[in-house]
Amino acid sequence: MKQSLGAKPLVFPTPVWVVGSYDQQDKPNIMTIAWGGVCCSKPPCLTISLRKVTYTYGCITARKAFTVNVSTEQDVMLADYCGIASGKTADKFAATGLTPVKSTLVDAPYIQEFALAAECRLLQTVKLGLHTMFIGEILDIKADEAILGPDGLPDLDKLRPVAFGPVIRTYHGLGEYLGPAFSIGQNVEQSDDK
Amino acid sequence: MKQSLGAKPLVFPTPVWVVGSYDQQDKPNIMTIAWGGVCCSKPPCLTISLRKVTYTYGCITARKAFTVNVSTEQDVMLADYCGIASGKTADKFAATGLTPVKSTLVDAPYIQEFALAAECRLLQTVKLGLHTMFIGEILDIKADEAILGPDGLPDLDKLRPVAFGPVIRTYHGLGEYLGPAFSIGQNVEQSDDK
Repeated sequence: MKQSLGAKPLVFPTPVWVVGSYDQQDKPNIMTIAWGGVCCSKPPCLTISLRKVTYTYGCITARKAFTVNVSTEQDVMLADYCGIASGKTADKFAATGLTPVKSTLVDAPYIQEFALAAECRLLQTVKLGLHTMFIGEILDIKADEAILGPDGLPDLDKLRPVAFGPVIRTYHGLGEYLGPAFSIGQNVEQSDDK
Repeated sequence: MKQSLGAKPLVFPTPVWVVGSYDQQDKPNIMTIAWGGVCCSKPPCLTISLRKVTYTYGCITARKAFTVNVSTEQDVMLADYCGIASGKTADKFAATGLTPVKSTLVDAPYIQEFALAAECRLLQTVKLGLHTMFIGEILDIKADEAILGPDGLPDLDKLRPVAFGPVIRTYHGLGEYLGPAFSIGQNVEQSDDK
């Protein structure tokens, strides 16, 4: 018998993504979110959700573009700060010492010191309630060579991305490698005959 | 200088969620996805994205409801199987030995043996490309007492949810606790004065 915990966003894990955007005066801003995910493979798209009162909401609405910078164990304190302070009153790039790099593909900055960034153009805006969802098409992924494996793709043991626990408000690193997807479960059905 | 990895859904981490639904003959089905995330706090909502060819796509479209069952280290092989086999040809509950439990709140089954499930009613459907996004309102969270902490909320050291690495196709457990959110970054700005 399961317990009822009520109507809460208690699903795990969620990402820790630092969203980069420009305001209407070209000031670069960053804001950390955990409400987001991939939503399509072709074209590759992701969602991020923001409250309307946030500074980044106005930036994305005006500039129709944003970046998603993946938070890692190394920079999780900076990411946490970017979820506490508001671009309305703080220059978060200056406060953190991070460097904005203007994307050549979209009208938004990514963070030089973060190892992996997705450059997104705004495709759709979906108003839901307290949060509004922005759907972005990923036009490119920019990555530091240091976090790539021999196949030229990110190696998560090198990247060390961070996960968030909603409601319980916890950050976690990634742990043990559990195996390859679309593979470790392939014999489950056969075990039914045993 | 960052490397360009192209237009790919290379953002981390993504969840490993097993989506429960009924087909039009009331057969319960489960399917594993990694394209999803929370998208609103009030009302609490999440997204899941499916290809139109999947069996679950038809189920959710017909029944307007689904559950999200969070995969854990204990059941990741079963979850992987549910991402390989199709409900068109397989009875995945029978093959895995898992037990469907009819939700009293929404027209969908959750998995008895999975420790945490979100019961969702379909709010909106957004066609994007290869994938279609379903936005579900979370009406309740059902959880096993064994994974709750003293505060009555999930303890991730007990739940041990799994994360997915898109494109690189890897499963990972959660690792080290890195600290409390909205807290560990609060002194970042002051350090600017040092």
